[in-house]
Amino acid sequence: MSRLRYGGDYNPEQWPEEVWAQDVELMRRAGVTTVTVGVFSWARLEPRPGERDFGWLDRVLDLLHAGGIEVFLATPTASPPPWLGHRFPETLPVDFDGRRLAYGSRNQFCPSSPVYREHALALVGDLARRYADHPALALWHVGNELGQVCHCDVTAAHFRRWLRGRYGDLGALNDAWSTAFWSQRYGEWDEVIPPRRAPYVLNPGQRLDFARFCSDALVECFVAERDVLRSATPGVPVTTNFMGLSQVVDCWVLAAHEDVVSHDWYPDPADPTSHVVSAMSFDLMRSLKRGPWLLMEQAASAVSWRRRNPPKPAGQLRAQSVQAVARGADAVCFFQWRASRGGAEKFHSGMLPHAGPDSRVFREVEALGADLEALAPVAGTGVTAQVAVVLDWESWWAVGLDAHPSDDLDLLDRVRDCYEPLFDLGVTVDFAPASADLSAYRLVVVPNLYLVRDPGPLRSFVEGGGTLVMGFFSGLVDEHDRVHPGGYPAPFRELLGLRIEEVVPLGPDDVLECSSASLGGFTADFWYDDLRAEGAEVVAALADGTPVVLRNRYGAGVAWYVATRPERGAARRLFERVVAEAGVEPVLRPPRGVEAVRRGDVLFLVNHGLDEVGLDVPGAHVDLLTGGAVSGSLTLGRFGVAALVPQPG
Amino acid sequence: MSRLRYGGDYNPEQWPEEVWAQDVELMRRAGVTTVTVGVFSWARLEPRPGERDFGWLDRVLDLLHAGGIEVFLATPTASPPPWLGHRFPETLPVDFDGRRLAYGSRNQFCPSSPVYREHALALVGDLARRYADHPALALWHVGNELGQVCHCDVTAAHFRRWLRGRYGDLGALNDAWSTAFWSQRYGEWDEVIPPRRAPYVLNPGQRLDFARFCSDALVECFVAERDVLRSATPGVPVTTNFMGLSQVVDCWVLAAHEDVVSHDWYPDPADPTSHVVSAMSFDLMRSLKRGPWLLMEQAASAVSWRRRNPPKPAGQLRAQSVQAVARGADAVCFFQWRASRGGAEKFHSGMLPHAGPDSRVFREVEALGADLEALAPVAGTGVTAQVAVVLDWESWWAVGLDAHPSDDLDLLDRVRDCYEPLFDLGVTVDFAPASADLSAYRLVVVPNLYLVRDPGPLRSFVEGGGTLVMGFFSGLVDEHDRVHPGGYPAPFRELLGLRIEEVVPLGPDDVLECSSASLGGFTADFWYDDLRAEGAEVVAALADGTPVVLRNRYGAGVAWYVATRPERGAARRLFERVVAEAGVEPVLRPPRGVEAVRRGDVLFLVNHGLDEVGLDVPGAHVDLLTGGAVSGSLTLGRFGVAALVPQPG
Amino acid sequence: MSRLRYGGDYNPEQWPEEVWAQDVELMRRAGVTTVTVGVFSWARLEPRPGERDFGWLDRVLDLLHAGGIEVFLATPTASPPPWLGHRFPETLPVDFDGRRLAYGSRNQFCPSSPVYREHALALVGDLARRYADHPALALWHVGNELGQVCHCDVTAAHFRRWLRGRYGDLGALNDAWSTAFWSQRYGEWDEVIPPRRAPYVLNPGQRLDFARFCSDALVECFVAERDVLRSATPGVPVTTNFMGLSQVVDCWVLAAHEDVVSHDWYPDPADPTSHVVSAMSFDLMRSLKRGPWLLMEQAASAVSWRRRNPPKPAGQLRAQSVQAVARGADAVCFFQWRASRGGAEKFHSGMLPHAGPDSRVFREVEALGADLEALAPVAGTGVTAQVAVVLDWESWWAVGLDAHPSDDLDLLDRVRDCYEPLFDLGVTVDFAPASADLSAYRLVVVPNLYLVRDPGPLRSFVEGGGTLVMGFFSGLVDEHDRVHPGGYPAPFRELLGLRIEEVVPLGPDDVLECSSASLGGFTADFWYDDLRAEGAEVVAALADGTPVVLRNRYGAGVAWYVATRPERGAARRLFERVVAEAGVEPVLRPPRGVEAVRRGDVLFLVNHGLDEVGLDVPGAHVDLLTGGAVSGSLTLGRFGVAALVPQPG
Repeated sequence: MSRLRYGGDYNPEQWPEEVWAQDVELMRRAGVTTVTVGVFSWARLEPRPGERDFGWLDRVLDLLHAGGIEVFLATPTASPPPWLGHRFPETLPVDFDGRRLAYGSRNQFCPSSPVYREHALALVGDLARRYADHPALALWHVGNELGQVCHCDVTAAHFRRWLRGRYGDLGALNDAWSTAFWSQRYGEWDEVIPPRRAPYVLNPGQRLDFARFCSDALVECFVAERDVLRSATPGVPVTTNFMGLSQVVDCWVLAAHEDVVSHDWYPDPADPTSHVVSAMSFDLMRSLKRGPWLLMEQAASAVSWRRRNPPKPAGQLRAQSVQAVARGADAVCFFQWRASRGGAEKFHSGMLPHAGPDSRVFREVEALGADLEALAPVAGTGVTAQVAVVLDWESWWAVGLDAHPSDDLDLLDRVRDCYEPLFDLGVTVDFAPASADLSAYRLVVVPNLYLVRDPGPLRSFVEGGGTLVMGFFSGLVDEHDRVHPGGYPAPFRELLGLRIEEVVPLGPDDVLECSSASLGGFTADFWYDDLRAEGAEVVAALADGTPVVLRNRYGAGVAWYVATRPERGAARRLFERVVAEAGVEPVLRPPRGVEAVRRGDVLFLVNHGLDEVGLDVPGAHVDLLTGGAVSGSLTLGRFGVAALVPQPG
Repeated sequence: MSRLRYGGDYNPEQWPEEVWAQDVELMRRAGVTTVTVGVFSWARLEPRPGERDFGWLDRVLDLLHAGGIEVFLATPTASPPPWLGHRFPETLPVDFDGRRLAYGSRNQFCPSSPVYREHALALVGDLARRYADHPALALWHVGNELGQVCHCDVTAAHFRRWLRGRYGDLGALNDAWSTAFWSQRYGEWDEVIPPRRAPYVLNPGQRLDFARFCSDALVECFVAERDVLRSATPGVPVTTNFMGLSQVVDCWVLAAHEDVVSHDWYPDPADPTSHVVSAMSFDLMRSLKRGPWLLMEQAASAVSWRRRNPPKPAGQLRAQSVQAVARGADAVCFFQWRASRGGAEKFHSGMLPHAGPDSRVFREVEALGADLEALAPVAGTGVTAQVAVVLDWESWWAVGLDAHPSDDLDLLDRVRDCYEPLFDLGVTVDFAPASADLSAYRLVVVPNLYLVRDPGPLRSFVEGGGTLVMGFFSGLVDEHDRVHPGGYPAPFRELLGLRIEEVVPLGPDDVLECSSASLGGFTADFWYDDLRAEGAEVVAALADGTPVVLRNRYGAGVAWYVATRPERGAARRLFERVVAEAGVEPVLRPPRGVEAVRRGDVLFLVNHGLDEVGLDVPGAHVDLLTGGAVSGSLTLGRFGVAALVPQPG
Repeated sequence: MSRLRYGGDYNPEQWPEEVWAQDVELMRRAGVTTVTVGVFSWARLEPRPGERDFGWLDRVLDLLHAGGIEVFLATPTASPPPWLGHRFPETLPVDFDGRRLAYGSRNQFCPSSPVYREHALALVGDLARRYADHPALALWHVGNELGQVCHCDVTAAHFRRWLRGRYGDLGALNDAWSTAFWSQRYGEWDEVIPPRRAPYVLNPGQRLDFARFCSDALVECFVAERDVLRSATPGVPVTTNFMGLSQVVDCWVLAAHEDVVSHDWYPDPADPTSHVVSAMSFDLMRSLKRGPWLLMEQAASAVSWRRRNPPKPAGQLRAQSVQAVARGADAVCFFQWRASRGGAEKFHSGMLPHAGPDSRVFREVEALGADLEALAPVAGTGVTAQVAVVLDWESWWAVGLDAHPSDDLDLLDRVRDCYEPLFDLGVTVDFAPASADLSAYRLVVVPNLYLVRDPGPLRSFVEGGGTLVMGFFSGLVDEHDRVHPGGYPAPFRELLGLRIEEVVPLGPDDVLECSSASLGGFTADFWYDDLRAEGAEVVAALADGTPVVLRNRYGAGVAWYVATRPERGAARRLFERVVAEAGVEPVLRPPRGVEAVRRGDVLFLVNHGLDEVGLDVPGAHVDLLTGGAVSGSLTLGRFGVAALVPQPG
């Protein structure tokens, strides 16, 4: 594909048929190439059990095709119709408290329910066969934001089958779950249940395996639909849209079953630093299948699910969209094309807002269509990173369990603490799971790898000459959430050259004073480890001599350990040194608030800050967006963007 | 009736019979004219299903009558006895989470339950027939603070019957509820259920209709009892006591079925501004049937249901009671006569407190009796207002639904933002529903009329020469919570001369700087609209030119639009101008903290502030409360009151 | 026993058998004398219903005995195995909301369940008979931290039996619960249920009796196990470990059924004032059976159940352990010997931490073993107090009920407000229930005795010459939570010489200015009473003359009343005067942060403050801990301790 796709969810069933032609006309005006159809149309396609009503969808697809617009056709399985829950209450999910949830919203299904799955697959099959040869069909979009969790008895039976597959015999499960504690030993398989509200803290092994199971159950649902679709249309790629940085499904696993990765992303317009987390999420998406991905949903302006939902300020939509393209997106799409008049998300903005085409939002949407056309040269190209950040789902699940040294430890916050200094330095980052072969990178950053199944890849990476930066509370437990004894972090003690006796979570008002010859004095907070260097060089320490930043030569490489949370400036200085020593080359050292990424041979610059800034860009470039020449320097206003290619000749 | 009634709930069943005579004696000492008997006596009147024990009540009524005290006789249907819930668990309410609530408190009934209704009406019938001719009987008091909501299956069936009555066929319901969104289309009536806990945001149409239904179901309960009572005693008026500014029942609807309006009101003694909301609630009560109303319950001192429950400071009870009379109350009553020794409300103060008659509270109660006797001339007279504030229940329900631009928007806060400047200016206000004929008013204020069923009355009002002030987030949706497309607020765009593209809720720390030639510079917060004037004059604007206060000539009148929340001083200046231009005459421009209202020919002045204040009152008056002459000016201490009539001659 | 016991919970079933020998070796190194075995071993001892597996426990006890370590053998009834809940779901507890809680944690049993009790007692019987003659057996430890509450139908039936026993006939119950209010009168016993979620505030009499019942049901469970144990081993003492200052079980009642009192105590290392509440809890434990008690559980360093769980700083463990001994502990034990690798409490520290024996924690554990050996002379000796603080469970339950003047009133906070000034003054305190004979004390302090069953003991105490200090909100209600009418606090009005009309809870920002000739001016907050002196001397008053501290001669004694919460310095001055007038002798007036207690003839000094302090200690002493001489003065560093005996000769 030699262009970037542009469009959004299109839900024509919400509108009288006479509106459809106007929709296609306005889509063309805005440069829309692609729409996603049918995400929530189960009740329309199957108004009563077993009935099929495809006529309206035939007309929609024909109309779009006639307008030159391709279709991402969705399976409507995320939101079963009321009749499913009414006739088969066992398909409705049960929450942790044992409450069976009602229909009247969306997502009301138990992923383990065979009744749900049968009805879903029957409809998916008919849909696939009907539209297999439709010329508008470009991609299959399975369900929506997979993330349902259920605790019912059907789920319990499924969970037990899954556990039998994992452990074989019950003794292994008792051992893995440490059921000797608190008299939790299971004598029969039938006794095993999902985590449910209990008088006190639940077994963490049970909770961790249930998190794995929930992810696997949703992957099963996806794969079952994918297989039905593939058998009808072997050549059409299949995706499902990920829901931001969501914890329920292991994205590494699910992405491996997809043909292409797609992503829904909704930064908060009220948060002036949201572009950093956006960049994180985009880099993750690109890393999942190591290539371009689709921004399947974003908002043209306000959303409707936060406590306060302001619109995006003028220009922000363009900056955010170009940011996604810069970090690997081959499509920029929205939920949804036309803002709903009714229903639960009517105040979620649309490409075509309630105010109609004569509006700032629609004018920005039109302009964005033109911008994306200008950026066609980057379609399909890649982003190269010399740095990887480890983000591992089973460790994420485990680090969030109860009864830990601190309930405040949020993995994404810690990832951001590592990511932000690199972002500020203009260093591009990939993400990787803990099991990945990391040898292609110069630097690997491990924010909090609480659970370590196999320390081998990280050790080999350093041994082979790589540089590692590891954050506190890493290497604590094995895959069953059992502590490695002998002083933390046992699997990495030799690698890091240190030994921790105890960990010290701090209160919200505690501040540490740290001294360091190379970094200068700095403050830190949140946490420190009561540790001793055993071979590592102490780079920074507390007044009582407790080391807080250490550096250890290991094999041909270097391993850093950061036992606290340095304030932002110190973190940047630290990473500046690490990056320099590791031979990592920044794209550009950008001014504060400006993002710099290179995709293919295009240098993208985005100003997310409040003020106009000037930048030096050595050499002569052409800005793809304006066609203008840029030599030596340029100025970016608020939300200003540039996409520079070296001037030929 | 040529006097003001005075008294309270009297629950003799809590006390040994020998106490009753002392009660009547002390009531007489305090000037009590009226008591409400039997509100919570179902279990005493019907100790076992079908049994009747009226003997004690006969004696109570006879005793009261002998003491010259009239009786508001209550039907005891607000609190069924334990045996009803025990034998008929289906009469117990089920909450949103599906939990069936237990007896052991009060209010534990499902308003839709035929079993509950049959038992209730049978007892009401027997009660009515037994006391139809009792000379003490002055009024029927149905139930108590109607406000029960239930989500059970019996309610579901009732809700479906109600919806069939409203929509006729299911297609109309699907259309009204926008069920095309999220695949919520109903294929059979039996699938329709009340809102219950679901995985995500519920359908707003379903929630809005359920709010309407819950109100109607309670009105049905009231009407059923009223009809039984009326058939026994056609001449005795029937009321039910409203619960403050409560949202569950549409007071306009229920009041229309009552013979007289009554009100329970409990301002917080720890809130120095509570008198403003009190005034609002009293004006609403007066407006409901456009005439005198009964203050059915207030507290003599502390209540027991807030987190902290201080007593009323000395004098406040008098000030609050006179305030109610000033705004139309023909009765001042309390919950309850004698403070309970036991049970859930024993720390709710009584007219006769735990400390007994030798106490500040009882002395204030006695003095209040004398005050009310002195105020007898106002009984039955009216209060005239040139200003109406629109308070519309279905819009109130709708504006509080989920997934809106801001969860912070509380309608009563917004009403107060409009009401308070008028209160400060000494302007008297009526309330009105959105459907009312408003032609009698000079000024109509519309705080947030999110839902508009018919913009006609407001348009006609302005067209005919009236002045309108409308607040932001008005005119957004139709009666089914479906957005009027084309730029907000579509039904009022022409009237207001403007067009809004997006709405901008602000964070708690955001402050807007507004400039205005006529009002001076001011700050605002909470919200603003991204709007353009289309004909309206811009009275105030933000620095970037976005208008925030506009004024538009329409027909023979003027329509103002206030797109933000100006700080209090600016709001007062704005309303000062509006009031002056509209020709509205204040009663008096009172000093800060002083309330001024005219009822009949009596000018009431109440000092709610902390300090003594002096006022100019042109002319010669007599204070009904003291009998003293007031010429030209007077001084009011803290909680000081005056009730001035022009000096005859 | 001529030594102090030292040890902890030992859970060998969590570890492979080859670890056990190392455990015993390290226990000996640390000076461990005693371990508690089997607390959570039900599932191991009875892996399937009716099966028994005692072999492993035989080997554990033999191994310990061979190593010279005695055993507190636990009945494992606190945590039933999964099979009990799976096969007999009726044994699982139901919460206030009607949710049946799951197994997968611990404590999942209904105390009223005959099925639970039968299974528990059968196993306890077999355990008792098997180990009756084992030489390692030193004490029976029943269950763990009794505190389970259930609201199921089996509980309901048990509750009704209990109520029948209490009230005889239903009329008495209706009277006691004031069911005349809100139509709650019960017509049949079967209608009576436990408190369950209801539409509004529950009946307080029902809630109070349910609190009594829950306590009694747990005492029943204890007594049933104790009787089985006693019949097998008449000479072995029986205890159950109390859970800090927990409200569920009336410790006075349960202690009366125990042979020795034991206590679990976990002060927060992040709270620099935790030693004051520790002292309170230790004094309570000593008072329960008026003699030595066992510190059954504490943490060697961090716990895992608070939001943030820092480790104990170096030295704190020693200071806290010596504090317990000083206040009467004859044992210092831990949960648990070896920190778990897995399960819900793996981050709860152990005597042997994850870091292993080469660690600060284990070295402190070893040193503590030596310290306790040195302190052997105090074993079995007593602590003498001239002051008693009243802590009464039924009043505690009652004062915490809903719909009170303030939800902020926490009894333990109020007890601490009285306890802390005495602690600061070096005055030793006992605790006593309200029904105790107090004649042996010079001073009795009554923080908030809201419920008074019988004022006699307190009146007699003062009449006989004692000094009483009573805090506000005392003497309000009778045993059925019914207000004593006639002005608070009716049962004590004559004793105190005053009368309260109303109580005034204050907001968080309210501050009172109080003046007092003898105490100087001071501020106060939280509360005051609207009271009049009727004979009492006014010691301090508000600006408007309202008395806030009063002193009344009564009989041969003196009764003080403190109607507010004076700031800490004023409270200390007040108690300094009271103590002096009452002839109470402090152990020593210690510097700030230092604790001084005398046990037997040993003067214990513990510095809980951050800084080194010097103290004067008249006379010549030897420090048992160091063997060194101390003459006239000594210096204590942070967490420094001394145990001084007069130098012989």
